[in-house]
Amino acid sequence: MKKVVLAFSGGLDTSYCAIFLAQELGLEVYSAIVDTGGFSEEELKEIERRAYAMGVKQHTHLNETEHFYNSCIRYLVFGNILKNNTYPLSVSAERVTQAIAIANHAKSIGADFVAHGSTGAGNDQVRFDMVFQALIPEVEIITPIRDKRLSREEEITYLKEHGVEMDFAKAQYSINKGIWGTSVGGKETLTSHLPLPEEAYPTQLSKTEPERVTLYFEKGELKGVNGQTFEHPVQAIQHLQELAAPFAIGRDIHVGDTIIGIKGRVGFEAAAPMVIIKAHHLLEKHVLTKWQLYWKDQLSAWYGNWLHEGQLLDPTMRDIEAFLESTQQNVTGKVFVQLAPYRFLVEGIESAHDLMSDKFGSYGEMNRAWTSDDVKGFAKIFGNQTKMYHTVNNTAEWAE
Amino acid sequence: MKKVVLAFSGGLDTSYCAIFLAQELGLEVYSAIVDTGGFSEEELKEIERRAYAMGVKQHTHLNETEHFYNSCIRYLVFGNILKNNTYPLSVSAERVTQAIAIANHAKSIGADFVAHGSTGAGNDQVRFDMVFQALIPEVEIITPIRDKRLSREEEITYLKEHGVEMDFAKAQYSINKGIWGTSVGGKETLTSHLPLPEEAYPTQLSKTEPERVTLYFEKGELKGVNGQTFEHPVQAIQHLQELAAPFAIGRDIHVGDTIIGIKGRVGFEAAAPMVIIKAHHLLEKHVLTKWQLYWKDQLSAWYGNWLHEGQLLDPTMRDIEAFLESTQQNVTGKVFVQLAPYRFLVEGIESAHDLMSDKFGSYGEMNRAWTSDDVKGFAKIFGNQTKMYHTVNNTAEWAE
Amino acid sequence: MKKVVLAFSGGLDTSYCAIFLAQELGLEVYSAIVDTGGFSEEELKEIERRAYAMGVKQHTHLNETEHFYNSCIRYLVFGNILKNNTYPLSVSAERVTQAIAIANHAKSIGADFVAHGSTGAGNDQVRFDMVFQALIPEVEIITPIRDKRLSREEEITYLKEHGVEMDFAKAQYSINKGIWGTSVGGKETLTSHLPLPEEAYPTQLSKTEPERVTLYFEKGELKGVNGQTFEHPVQAIQHLQELAAPFAIGRDIHVGDTIIGIKGRVGFEAAAPMVIIKAHHLLEKHVLTKWQLYWKDQLSAWYGNWLHEGQLLDPTMRDIEAFLESTQQNVTGKVFVQLAPYRFLVEGIESAHDLMSDKFGSYGEMNRAWTSDDVKGFAKIFGNQTKMYHTVNNTAEWAE
Amino acid sequence: MKKVVLAFSGGLDTSYCAIFLAQELGLEVYSAIVDTGGFSEEELKEIERRAYAMGVKQHTHLNETEHFYNSCIRYLVFGNILKNNTYPLSVSAERVTQAIAIANHAKSIGADFVAHGSTGAGNDQVRFDMVFQALIPEVEIITPIRDKRLSREEEITYLKEHGVEMDFAKAQYSINKGIWGTSVGGKETLTSHLPLPEEAYPTQLSKTEPERVTLYFEKGELKGVNGQTFEHPVQAIQHLQELAAPFAIGRDIHVGDTIIGIKGRVGFEAAAPMVIIKAHHLLEKHVLTKWQLYWKDQLSAWYGNWLHEGQLLDPTMRDIEAFLESTQQNVTGKVFVQLAPYRFLVEGIESAHDLMSDKFGSYGEMNRAWTSDDVKGFAKIFGNQTKMYHTVNNTAEWAE
Repeated sequence: MKKVVLAFSGGLDTSYCAIFLAQELGLEVYSAIVDTGGFSEEELKEIERRAYAMGVKQHTHLNETEHFYNSCIRYLVFGNILKNNTYPLSVSAERVTQAIAIANHAKSIGADFVAHGSTGAGNDQVRFDMVFQALIPEVEIITPIRDKRLSREEEITYLKEHGVEMDFAKAQYSINKGIWGTSVGGKETLTSHLPLPEEAYPTQLSKTEPERVTLYFEKGELKGVNGQTFEHPVQAIQHLQELAAPFAIGRDIHVGDTIIGIKGRVGFEAAAPMVIIKAHHLLEKHVLTKWQLYWKDQLSAWYGNWLHEGQLLDPTMRDIEAFLESTQQNVTGKVFVQLAPYRFLVEGIESAHDLMSDKFGSYGEMNRAWTSDDVKGFAKIFGNQTKMYHTVNNTAEWAE
Repeated sequence: MKKVVLAFSGGLDTSYCAIFLAQELGLEVYSAIVDTGGFSEEELKEIERRAYAMGVKQHTHLNETEHFYNSCIRYLVFGNILKNNTYPLSVSAERVTQAIAIANHAKSIGADFVAHGSTGAGNDQVRFDMVFQALIPEVEIITPIRDKRLSREEEITYLKEHGVEMDFAKAQYSINKGIWGTSVGGKETLTSHLPLPEEAYPTQLSKTEPERVTLYFEKGELKGVNGQTFEHPVQAIQHLQELAAPFAIGRDIHVGDTIIGIKGRVGFEAAAPMVIIKAHHLLEKHVLTKWQLYWKDQLSAWYGNWLHEGQLLDPTMRDIEAFLESTQQNVTGKVFVQLAPYRFLVEGIESAHDLMSDKFGSYGEMNRAWTSDDVKGFAKIFGNQTKMYHTVNNTAEWAE
Repeated sequence: MKKVVLAFSGGLDTSYCAIFLAQELGLEVYSAIVDTGGFSEEELKEIERRAYAMGVKQHTHLNETEHFYNSCIRYLVFGNILKNNTYPLSVSAERVTQAIAIANHAKSIGADFVAHGSTGAGNDQVRFDMVFQALIPEVEIITPIRDKRLSREEEITYLKEHGVEMDFAKAQYSINKGIWGTSVGGKETLTSHLPLPEEAYPTQLSKTEPERVTLYFEKGELKGVNGQTFEHPVQAIQHLQELAAPFAIGRDIHVGDTIIGIKGRVGFEAAAPMVIIKAHHLLEKHVLTKWQLYWKDQLSAWYGNWLHEGQLLDPTMRDIEAFLESTQQNVTGKVFVQLAPYRFLVEGIESAHDLMSDKFGSYGEMNRAWTSDDVKGFAKIFGNQTKMYHTVNNTAEWAE
Repeated sequence: MKKVVLAFSGGLDTSYCAIFLAQELGLEVYSAIVDTGGFSEEELKEIERRAYAMGVKQHTHLNETEHFYNSCIRYLVFGNILKNNTYPLSVSAERVTQAIAIANHAKSIGADFVAHGSTGAGNDQVRFDMVFQALIPEVEIITPIRDKRLSREEEITYLKEHGVEMDFAKAQYSINKGIWGTSVGGKETLTSHLPLPEEAYPTQLSKTEPERVTLYFEKGELKGVNGQTFEHPVQAIQHLQELAAPFAIGRDIHVGDTIIGIKGRVGFEAAAPMVIIKAHHLLEKHVLTKWQLYWKDQLSAWYGNWLHEGQLLDPTMRDIEAFLESTQQNVTGKVFVQLAPYRFLVEGIESAHDLMSDKFGSYGEMNRAWTSDDVKGFAKIFGNQTKMYHTVNNTAEWAE
């Protein structure tokens, strides 16, 4: 009997796939859920219970949270990456990690097929397909939902007919949760003009008094919060998330270019990711040189887009990661943040590598490390070519 | 008697210069204030009064607000330019415009000298120097404050000795106001870790109930607010500023690389500029293509830095402006914004050029303009090179 | 009877298509050849004769050479574009222009179908498909060669069976000729290590004595050669080609990334294009500022790649063209070139906009427009941040 | 007695300095020559002899050739760096290495002063100044030639008066030789239009029969030539130089932007560097992915400029080096080159990492790893956004 590994989340689409693969295609189904920090123990158990109830041969829980951080989030922080200056790539990043874990799992059990439940209208299908074809080219990909263009109602009817019991009352909003943020889709996100209503966000405001937190970064990675240090940045992120999420911060709606060319709109809440990125960025503004900051932005924008498009396996990404890693050598220090309802302020930093030091001079106040004549000479030479340009081309009247 | 044009703001430094140029250097002083939207009628009159009281030969008010918009702010909006993703370049942009106006004025009256009151520790000295040397290379530059490295106390003593009456009680915070934002410097901004206290900001919170505003952009320029249209974007900006400023939004502290190499920290409040940039950006995310958005960011980051460094006269800037102008052809439509105390949300847009349209498909839901097989083929080819790379180099086990 | 427009070159593939479309699919065939400067009058007549002999309803000659220049070559020159610093994009650029002309022709005659003879293994299929779907989305695309994966022998058999007479002895090398260069493919280009033999190149060395030519550029466009001026740059290019080609210059083999992910290798000869690009570049090095040169390169590399990938209709391309156009304002002057067998030297330039002028100083010899102290001050400030970096981080021993 | 380290080349300028520092300033002179591969044993001995004859306290020969390669040339090869696509940065790179060696030497002997013989009109003064201020900020810089703006005649008179005997007949061309190329300046390079005459080049054509050489690269570094392997790439470069230089290849004139804003023109010959860069580039075109090639070019252009401007100590350079190093992992293989008088051809490559493989398909001929339908789907999705753009904006008639 041929084996298929199914990327399984326990939702409607992948439940349909579990039944379909076994009963229509006669395959031995190995369901696997890839955990990137978005499930509780109880949720994971319930998903496993349902998988076996649907008759899968074996269900596997792949805990990839730390691997997700090590291979992906780490660089999103190093690069302060927000797609189109907005979205922390919560789902985009996670999906590629999940696809890689599924591919490795399929290889380890010697699967003949691999299946995912993506529709034909989103990004995830491309991410899954491309990772599978790169890492397990000999394994055939099956995508029942995409191929059959099934409506939700058809899926429900099918599942009921096959005796599956689950809560078919579709939640009003589709939610995808992971350690790097939660995405929220709903009827408003299908329009260009409507914001998400307050209640659409999974986390509701529950703290109203501002709090201060101190983040400690070591070589660009979050290692401590409020004096407490953690073994792995994943734990620091989770701890910060507990402190920050009740302020309902890090929410926004992003509209972006999908891999397939259309524009897609999605709401998200990502309290810890947004605080971490903004705090990390401020620390960098103090310890990096002008051109380090410049090039980090240029490369990171492209890196974020290419990751979003599912291309993490392109070796260019390794090269940019080497660049980013190199920039983080001195990104060590404390960042002071104020959390308040719906907003936060990154107030300042403290670092042994701070290049802002009155040893050299105080901006606008006093020059200690150079003379006035030095700056006059500098201005003369720094503007030399522009001056020559205007002289040669008689364009001095440019601005009149 | 030789003529000197003095860039005059009526503050301590330029008052010192006015006296010094006339009395120590024996020059005929032509003071000129360049207005970029930061002065009231009363303030301008008072500054003129004081100029004449100090014995200047002639005082001129150069109203450059619209010119400042046309030659500079316009492109800052087109490029959504925030230096280091933070600062709308309020002062940086304004200072170059002021230097150009002073240079043109010096040329028009046939000045022998031109003077500015910058210290030797800031950005402005370089901006003034470079613009002057490019546009009026034959006019000699005089900078008494920089040359004599005067302390504030020495300036006060000197002015008192020369019978000047002004309020010498230094304001706790130094403020620079223009149409594109107000900068705030003080003892906290000389540290790396302290935020500015609430009272340091010139505009205090006075509205507490959220309000919605609708902005209307035409080819990238703000032309209307809440249904009211304006002859010139300057008026639209000023109108929006009146609506938004009472929410105390658009505040932050920026630490950035000065032209002279040190890090400088400055607070700012820029309600209208921040709302306009974020609203404009959202509209662009709907109407521009993926690579238009990408390249705009790459070029704008450099443009902002180079403007900050006083290099507006480099012809490269004209080339980038041509690029930016070209991108704005379809950036026309409404943007809906919610203003609230200390924060604002850009909620959505409406545009005839919106590329997000369910005519083509709905993200994640339904593919209308292509089939499932189309995407399968796409994913195969789109990932072709990465697949080959991993096959050739046997690195398929990369992620394990 | 339904109408199909067929992009027709008179070769084996498109001859097959002409018969197939009429006889198997029962369509009224409108063949059209898009001339981008690669055909003689005789060749065009012969192609027309054969089209009618194969029974097309109507054959049209679309002369697009000037349009090709105006919409494409012009920017390749402005950008000094050589893909991977090697290939002048001879075919890539031409094919998109041809697709646009075919699309417009199909629209003008109200075609129901449009056909091209590309295989499934090259770039052209994607270029044709994409232009057609963007410009004539309502017209269905037919691609018999690609769909049927026909071998050359099968095509010949079919054509013979249908009474077509042509020279079926396949030339040893496939040649594609246009005004911007001639590509050469053959058995060597299917390997990674073999060069093309001398005889594979259509133009053979026939001049051995070096010659000097003077090119005259006006705002970046070639307007004159050796004192003779031309109405349109197309004529100047053709004139230069006549002078330069006999030296067998502008030859190389390029290996590049195809749109479909594989690497493809192609030989080419492009005497005039290579001379023009190198001459234009030298002129620019004299008249443009440092950052104009820098940004031109960055944008042009991407522009060339995106054009190569058939994406000329992306509006980002218009934006970059606006940038490039703006940079050419002063690119006016003479360039002196020496032509010799298999090589050429760009010797120097003469321009009223030359920024190299001893009015300001002579490199390494004499500073006229600044003092030694000016440069000392400049060096101090220019290196200020790096100095602070090494002081703060105690890395002064870096280089030891 | 206070100590001064003098960067000494044995030429007129530094000979003047040696006398001046000792006799006018009363300093103990420690002359040091930094060898970056441009001197023979005999030349080095003669320079030492002259140094002592001029009365220096101690003369030191600092052999920095391998260090120059390891810290600099290596990355110039990785990045295929040619400034403005022309000049291998022969002198620019070398000068910074020399400045670092001098700084370390000054530190090691506890010097109070450091001196260089640069004029006030070139790049070198800035390179020396900046490296010294970053690495040995406590050591004062002395630059007699720049400060006194001495003419050549004044220097000669002074030296004669002080009993120095040397060949004062200035060579018609000033030559700077190092392992990465030789620069040539003369009366022609002070014009914009004159080429250097044949005799100005130090190496004259002496081989006329074409030769083939095979270069072997390992992770981007030249390790072997014609089957012979070398312990260090420096030896491979020197060996290749011996083979290639007699063909008089790698010559050109470069005009570029100096650090001080003027344009400077310089001739050069760099046979081995040019062959290596072009061969390395071809190998990369076969083994790197599309975006690796793209980003290498973008970063390398900036890296080359910033190195040219003396900023090698900016940590951004380390970050880019980390990027470049990462890209070289698979740049291993053979490159076949043909050398001929005044030109060379890079004919092809052979590599286990070659991504051009007919396992996947042959460009333009046969698709093996995908179907025709796959490409149709690809083209549809790849052009999706552009199609939507033209539909939404009714610009389908764009090209007519």
